[in-house]
Amino acid sequence: MTREQLVKQIYDKGSYLCVGLDTDSTKIPAHLSGNPDAIFLFNKAIIDATRETCVAYKINTAFYEALGTKGWDAMEKTVHYIGADHFKIADAKRGDIGNTSDQYAKAFFETLPFDAVTVAPYMGEDSVRPFLEYEGKWAIVLGLTSNKGARDFELQASGDGLLYEKVLKTVSSWGTSQNLMFVVGATQAEAFTRIRELIPDHFLLVPGVGAQGGSLQEISEKAMIKDCGLLVNASRAVIYASGQEDFSSAAAAVAKQYQEEMGTYL
Amino acid sequence: MTREQLVKQIYDKGSYLCVGLDTDSTKIPAHLSGNPDAIFLFNKAIIDATRETCVAYKINTAFYEALGTKGWDAMEKTVHYIGADHFKIADAKRGDIGNTSDQYAKAFFETLPFDAVTVAPYMGEDSVRPFLEYEGKWAIVLGLTSNKGARDFELQASGDGLLYEKVLKTVSSWGTSQNLMFVVGATQAEAFTRIRELIPDHFLLVPGVGAQGGSLQEISEKAMIKDCGLLVNASRAVIYASGQEDFSSAAAAVAKQYQEEMGTYL
Repeated sequence: MTREQLVKQIYDKGSYLCVGLDTDSTKIPAHLSGNPDAIFLFNKAIIDATRETCVAYKINTAFYEALGTKGWDAMEKTVHYIGADHFKIADAKRGDIGNTSDQYAKAFFETLPFDAVTVAPYMGEDSVRPFLEYEGKWAIVLGLTSNKGARDFELQASGDGLLYEKVLKTVSSWGTSQNLMFVVGATQAEAFTRIRELIPDHFLLVPGVGAQGGSLQEISEKAMIKDCGLLVNASRAVIYASGQEDFSSAAAAVAKQYQEEMGTYL
Repeated sequence: MTREQLVKQIYDKGSYLCVGLDTDSTKIPAHLSGNPDAIFLFNKAIIDATRETCVAYKINTAFYEALGTKGWDAMEKTVHYIGADHFKIADAKRGDIGNTSDQYAKAFFETLPFDAVTVAPYMGEDSVRPFLEYEGKWAIVLGLTSNKGARDFELQASGDGLLYEKVLKTVSSWGTSQNLMFVVGATQAEAFTRIRELIPDHFLLVPGVGAQGGSLQEISEKAMIKDCGLLVNASRAVIYASGQEDFSSAAAAVAKQYQEEMGTYL
């Protein structure tokens, strides 16, 4: 999906919500959990319930890999079920030497129809570049993450700034704002102004709203640009809004709330 | 596998060779490539041919994910086939916020019987810690990698040293030399003396010998410690030693050469 197509989706829907499918087999409502296809059936119901209020889905690969081949199969079914109208993110935090990142890019962009993969920057340019070489596909590189561990390296001094600042500056020179986004956690609200100085034009994928405590209002005020430039992700707050049989209508209601709030900022 | 068990394997065999199963479906010999189970059959033949000369196998997850569910299935079969006597590494370069790294640890240590997972350090302590919480299992954290991109961040100034030095110092405080190793590329030979000052007791996983050009002799002289402390990986040099029907005997011969050379350094 191109930037133009993504932006059109955002303004058509009045939403820059990404729903995170961090589907944990131990948290699936009881009436589904006995089914061998429980993960996919759960995701299918969430997707049906949120399709009109979100523009993107983010599949957290860890939750699928934890189930082995059966989990990978559920991921395949899910990404195909989402379809072409939504921006599909493999939240996989991949990155390796060039010949290996080539294979990861193939896994998510050819074998599976994802639009984007999250990528860890530690190993440098040749670990990121393979994800930038597909027309209409995106690398979403870790900038400043939402977790406590961000203090260990990302927020440490590096040259004349902090490591995450160096990452934003350096990585943004490898691609364009048409094939490269950055992950910036919603819990890092005080950094968004600085981040927009460094990368004024790139889309940001912002996890950490909801269960992790980030503020949608603060992020939107500080980081929105003229064609939005934001995908704000909520995972647990949406998909586990209810743990009962009404989980999909509860998810729909939470996603609708996000959409309505987002509409006021767009 | 505990450190004591690994070290026993090394001295019993006179080898610290790790064979990297970066099995590329496009490079499998023609007589196997039509078989739906080609990846596993290739790996099985390589394992049978190298079992006595190596102590570890490293499965590069990217090459399996590139084939989707079918590839994940081949990885499962392969790791089970290797069995309990070898140290089994998932070269997966994972790492995410705590609740997600928990799932990756589950994927490789519970659902699959790996002994170790390679982990990217960028996201800090909570992204690494879940891999340290399994008895007899290991996190192998990226220190200084073998690729050109190591210059972009790993070899950049960070505080009073370089980023990879900070990573070695900081990460080594999160675990012990019984549950934590580091990746240091064989192409970074000039750094091994400094690395042994920072982490004198940890095992190092050293890729980059063979196709990437690192010297086994130089690494062994600079980085071997009293209980060896090295796993040196060769992937392409072993598994693609021949592209013909004799691929497994060719692999056996190359692995045997490594073992013989290693025997002279132990």
